[in-house]
Amino acid sequence: MIKARVTVTLKNGVLDPQGKAIGHALDGLGFEGVGSVRQGKVFDIELETDDRAKAEAELKAMSEKLLANTVIEDFSVEVI
Amino acid sequence: MIKARVTVTLKNGVLDPQGKAIGHALDGLGFEGVGSVRQGKVFDIELETDDRAKAEAELKAMSEKLLANTVIEDFSVEVI
Repeated sequence: MIKARVTVTLKNGVLDPQGKAIGHALDGLGFEGVGSVRQGKVFDIELETDDRAKAEAELKAMSEKLLANTVIEDFSVEVI
Repeated sequence: MIKARVTVTLKNGVLDPQGKAIGHALDGLGFEGVGSVRQGKVFDIELETDDRAKAEAELKAMSEKLLANTVIEDFSVEVI
């Protein structure tokens, strides 16, 4: 069995109002020097295979088809 | 300036219906051998300091106070 983590983040230049709100909330809680905050998603996925190369290819396909919106998001696949 | 990534994931044993729905959707798209899928969050944060130790302590405090619900979620801080 292979465990993997897919991380999906907004591309540079795409506005992230949610991240901005979190930044403001951190300021409000008294944290100083907080610059940009951007929120993304992670997916921890288990695959019933032992073929790392096949798993990586499959995870890339999953990301492109379902997990990420590649118009505005980047993704990275990491087999653990 | 320090860039860091805080990753927040559900603790083991906490139900994740969203992850389950994603798993079913992947099955439906024809991906075979998909086991458990669990969704989490990442926060990419920039801090205006060069003191790594201080930044790590501050990010841990941010996670405990705002970014993670430590009753049901774990978090990890990674300074890049």
